[in-house]
Parts: sequence; C-alpha cells; structure tokens
Amino acid sequence: MSLLAVGSVAFDAIETPFGKVERTLGGAASYFALAASHFTPVRIVAIVGDDFSAKERAIFRGRRIDLAGLEQVPGKSFFWSGRYNQNMNERLTLATELNVFAGFQPKLPESYVDSSFIFLGNIQPNLQLSVLKQVRRKPALIGLDTMNYWIERTPADLRETLKHIHVLVINDDETRQLTGEHNLTRAAHKIFKMGPRILVIKRGEHGALLVHSKFLFAVPAFPLEEVRDPTGAGDAFAGGFMGYLASAGRVNEKTLRCAMVYGSVLGSFTVERFGIERLLKLTRKEISARARRFSRLTSFQL
Amino acid sequence: MSLLAVGSVAFDAIETPFGKVERTLGGAASYFALAASHFTPVRIVAIVGDDFSAKERAIFRGRRIDLAGLEQVPGKSFFWSGRYNQNMNERLTLATELNVFAGFQPKLPESYVDSSFIFLGNIQPNLQLSVLKQVRRKPALIGLDTMNYWIERTPADLRETLKHIHVLVINDDETRQLTGEHNLTRAAHKIFKMGPRILVIKRGEHGALLVHSKFLFAVPAFPLEEVRDPTGAGDAFAGGFMGYLASAGRVNEKTLRCAMVYGSVLGSFTVERFGIERLLKLTRKEISARARRFSRLTSFQL
Repeated sequence: MSLLAVGSVAFDAIETPFGKVERTLGGAASYFALAASHFTPVRIVAIVGDDFSAKERAIFRGRRIDLAGLEQVPGKSFFWSGRYNQNMNERLTLATELNVFAGFQPKLPESYVDSSFIFLGNIQPNLQLSVLKQVRRKPALIGLDTMNYWIERTPADLRETLKHIHVLVINDDETRQLTGEHNLTRAAHKIFKMGPRILVIKRGEHGALLVHSKFLFAVPAFPLEEVRDPTGAGDAFAGGFMGYLASAGRVNEKTLRCAMVYGSVLGSFTVERFGIERLLKLTRKEISARARRFSRLTSFQL
Repeated sequence: MSLLAVGSVAFDAIETPFGKVERTLGGAASYFALAASHFTPVRIVAIVGDDFSAKERAIFRGRRIDLAGLEQVPGKSFFWSGRYNQNMNERLTLATELNVFAGFQPKLPESYVDSSFIFLGNIQPNLQLSVLKQVRRKPALIGLDTMNYWIERTPADLRETLKHIHVLVINDDETRQLTGEHNLTRAAHKIFKMGPRILVIKRGEHGALLVHSKFLFAVPAFPLEEVRDPTGAGDAFAGGFMGYLASAGRVNEKTLRCAMVYGSVLGSFTVERFGIERLLKLTRKEISARARRFSRLTSFQL
C-alpha cells in the first residue's frame, strides 16, 4: 500500500572525519522517503524553493517517489549544515536556515487523500494534525516523529495531535522529555495514555525498542566497522519501518517486529556512506541479506 | 563443571533513590559467584578481614559456594561506598578502602588446581596471571575482567596476562581505552591480536555484545520498570555468562549465545533489588522464565 510522508526536504552541508559535502539533497522527508521507497510506493508532501532543480527531482523519480505534493515556491529551500566529531557521537549544528520551510502549510493533492499509511515527520504539531484532516479515508496506520523543540514550545498542540496517531517514533531523550520519566518502560505507559498505542524508541548506536501494550521488541544496532556519516539514520530507520509495514499491508505483532528490523537495516546502510548516497544504490538483495544478518546477530536457542 | 572465581569480596555501603544500606556483602567476586552458583558449583579465591563473619560465610554456603580459597587475615575487609543519582546513570564513589585486599596474593588450595573454567576478576594483571600458573590442568575456558586503572597503570602486565586468556569481559569504555579505537568492531579485532579469541562488551542499560572472529551476537538489556540498585550488575552478568558455560561444559557458538542471554538475565535480576538480595532469592524457574522473555523480546521471523 502507498505511504504518505510529510516533512522537510532540504539541502545539507555535512562534515565528518571521513569527508565533507557542500550541498547535498537532505531533510528528514528525503531520507524517510528514499528508505521507504525500497518497500512501497511513497508520496511526499513538502516544500522547496526555486533552487530545487531537475537534478533533485530526478533523484526522487529514480526511486519512483510521487512528487505531486511537493510544493515549489520562490525563495531558497531549507538549508542545514552540521559537523560531527571524531567519534561521530556528537554533532555540531552550524546553520539551520528554514527559508521557504518557515511558511510550510502541508497541502494534500487529490491523488493523496486515500493514503492508508501516513508518516508525519518532525514539523509543527498543528501542521501534522492539518494533514490528517485532509485525509478522506481512515488510515491503517499513522506514525509521527517530533523533537525537543515542539515538546518544549507547543506542548498543548503536540498533546492534541498525539491523540490522533498510532505510532510515535522518537529517540530516548525525547521519550524522557515528553513524559518526564527516565525509565523508558514507564515512559511508554504514559505515552499510551496520550493516544499512541505503539512507541518506537530510536537509540542510535544502541539500537531500537518497540513498546506495545501486549509485547516488547528490541533490536540492537548493527555493529559496523565504518560509520562515515550518521546524518539521516533515524529518518531512514522510520522510512524502513513504515515502508515495510505499508508493503506488508497488515500491522500486527509479526509485521511490527520485522518492521523494526528493516528500519534498523535501512538506518545501518545509511550511515555507511555520505548523505543519501547509500540509500540510492541499495538493492533489495542487499536489504534482505542484511536482515538475515540481523537474524544471526540476535538469535539464540535456549 | 566447576568454575573458579578470583576477585574481591567486600562490604558495601550503597545509596540509591530507592534506599540505603550501610553494610552489605559485596565485591565483584561475590556478585559473580552468587550469579554463577545458579548454574554450576563455584569456587572462590579471595581475601577478607576478621570482620567477615559466620553470617557472610553462611550466605555463600547457602549457595553451595566453595570457600576453601577464601583467605581470612587480621584487619578489615575491602570496603566500598557509593551513591547513585536519580536516574541511576551516574555513580559517585564515596569511599574505596582496600584494607586487607591491598595485600591479596591469590593462593589456590589443592582442591582447586583442576578447575577447568576460570574467571579472573578485576585485580592487578600480575595477580591474575599468578592464578593461571597455579592451575595444573589446561583450563577449558579462561575469562578476564579488568578496568581503566590497570589499562593505564600496568599496560605491559595486562598485555602479558591477556596472552593467556580466552574471553575478555569488559565494558565499552574499557574496550575503547584498551585499544585506542572508538569503533567497537574494529576494537575487537585489535583485542584478538592481544590473545583473547572472544570479546564480551558489557553496555549496561544498552545490553551486551559478543564478538568472535566467526560471529557476532548482540543482546539488549531487559527493559525493566524498576531499577533499584545497579551495583554488581556487570559482575552478575559475567557470573551468569561463565556459570552457564561451565554448566554446559562446552564452549561453542550455540552455548556462547545462550551464555550471553543468561548473563543478561542474571544482570537484570540483580538491579531489581538492593545489593545481592535478588541473587539470593532467585530460583531456577525464574531464570528460565526470564530467558524465555529475552527470546520473545528479540525474536522475529523474516
């Protein structure tokens, strides 16, 4: 089934100990969509400036990503610049220029209103909710990402939006901040009372945890010899997770467990190369092979 | 098969947000032995002062732990005191009084020299090596723990001792410090060149990773609702790991994977109560049930 992704499409400047790029296609929705596109057709709702060219369009089209909802307006696209330290565990943001993204009002084209899998990327909670109001059919699964900024600045709006979603996909710090609870299991119970019935906690190099009222599932990060650029890993994880579920068409314990693994697979590939590079060259065969390696990494027989 | 444990037996004063104890049986070898005793007969080599009473002896004997190698000398036993912060992720050491432990020279009684599974707890590397010299039969498996103090202060001695052991059981910081390599997979390859053929990396609330030249195995930490006292979790992990292997009597990929799970099971129980409390009340049935919960926590079907 097709998957709708709402969020940022941007240009990034990235510097890591392994290299430097001055301007590359980035943004959470780009990573999400490119990752998810390996599983299912993806539709993007985002805004870009007139610096977004045929070259970037071709990247998305090359992955059969629907750009009917990509609004292009005069001005510059969202620009982000960051630098990682030697160990890749700290990131210094050098620039965040919202540009046309500051005026983003998500608009669903007619061809999107039947979307049954929806992922609301990290934008203002009111705008996330406005997307749901434009959908005409009851979606099978609505996922949402958010960040410390919205948790601090717009708590009431975020609480309202959370009432309408199924899966919250955030990191451990955000989980703790949103709930005021350090223990992640107890934090999950607080989040269930806010609306979502599934919490997916992204823990970077420590893997990811899914908490459902009926079961828990934990997946470690894949032990990689080389991490070249962590940018977009969390968004690629979410893309693999939602993309797999949309392709399965069913959300149950079995598919949720697999979705966590495919999310981890996509995240692990992403960090092996700069920016979106690895996501573009990835094959279905490589994805399956790494999913099997995750199985060998974690399986045991009592 | 029987397991020999060398290390510290101490008295601890512990304070966490959940409570406070002024004086409780502690020390790495105590946690290790009590955890391992749920799987296999354990023999301790340690030193205590004359404050070590019939009460503490009874605790070990209650778990059928062999104390023939527990040397008692005039003076006070090793004393450690620490306090944890609200989130249990930081520990402040308030006191470390080595007392009789400062003069520890491990001596194996005649009844121990045939030990086939040996764990060299975190003591001076020369003393660890001296234990191996007293063993008469070639051991099936020798494990070793160490810490930043020995990595910094006695690097040459540690390198020499590492040549003679099979499994190094340390945490991620120690792995990085010992190898000068941040990436844990690459760090493991450096450690293999030092002697050990298996590296077990303890990552606390993030689980544990086993690296073998032929395979990798990762186990997440068990998501607990209540962590009352993290003291001894890493030692109980090592005890569960080595204890299970000694009980299996074989060291191969299958038993190593299970050993990681049983190590995690013992570590997870330990932190649920203060000090060694939970380790004393634990039943084989509870251990098996939690191992099955680990299986449900991590299993998926592609």
